[in-house]
Amino acid sequence: MTEKAFQDYYPDHWSQCYGCGRLNAHGLQIKSFWDGDETVSTFQPKPYHTAVPGYVYGGLIASLIDCHCTGTAAAAAYRAEDRAMDTEPPFRFVTAALHVDYLKPTPLGVPLEIRASVEEIKGRKVVMNATLSADGLVCARGHVVAVQVPDHMMSK
Amino acid sequence: MTEKAFQDYYPDHWSQCYGCGRLNAHGLQIKSFWDGDETVSTFQPKPYHTAVPGYVYGGLIASLIDCHCTGTAAAAAYRAEDRAMDTEPPFRFVTAALHVDYLKPTPLGVPLEIRASVEEIKGRKVVMNATLSADGLVCARGHVVAVQVPDHMMSK
Repeated sequence: MTEKAFQDYYPDHWSQCYGCGRLNAHGLQIKSFWDGDETVSTFQPKPYHTAVPGYVYGGLIASLIDCHCTGTAAAAAYRAEDRAMDTEPPFRFVTAALHVDYLKPTPLGVPLEIRASVEEIKGRKVVMNATLSADGLVCARGHVVAVQVPDHMMSK
Repeated sequence: MTEKAFQDYYPDHWSQCYGCGRLNAHGLQIKSFWDGDETVSTFQPKPYHTAVPGYVYGGLIASLIDCHCTGTAAAAAYRAEDRAMDTEPPFRFVTAALHVDYLKPTPLGVPLEIRASVEEIKGRKVVMNATLSADGLVCARGHVVAVQVPDHMMSK
């Protein structure tokens, strides 16, 4: 893909996140894109992202859903205003609530696909549903409430 | 503390977890202990465990609550049977559902204290409530449902 990911529009100050910051050398550096009305991110876990041998660590699954959804919230907020992601004023979101249901063990060694869709945009809040799949099977479901970062924090 | 942590009782096969495995060199290696009827774990985030500069990444918070609670579930199951953690048959738990409410930004640079208490033990399921605090302030709350690993997976 040659299009920029949601996270590539974040300014440097917002690009330090362990989950999605392009400037965090230790981090996961996830990338999220639109796919129709859904958003999608693909992530290849490292061998050490294990729970029990052969399966992906649940904390990583929560982290991927979390960061993919805060990126989705920002992208959805721009789209709701019919604006490009590089236009002002900027939208940045943080997680208020994260719920993950682990439906089945997630195999380690294959790329994971995280998809999200917006359930509701209400004021400064975006509510989303997400899935995490491996080999085409949904292994976890997420429900995330993200809130827009207060303006005074944006000025940093 | 000289007492063994819950995680130190896990056999090698169950000690690979990125969050709590004593044998995962890349992982967080959290340690959990009883403190009366609650369980407690203390964790010092690394500087790169950041969300925006100065604050802890939400995925780490979810991960800490997750692994502390699966350890708590095992410890509570032994305690419910009035057995030591090194007695047979072993109890190991995985997460079925994880809910985290992020109440306020968690400062980076200080130790985090994760506490959990058992809400209910029902069959193979343990339901827990958790808090994550920094500088004595609760920054996040968790609610976790853990389920006992099926016997056929225990034999590995």
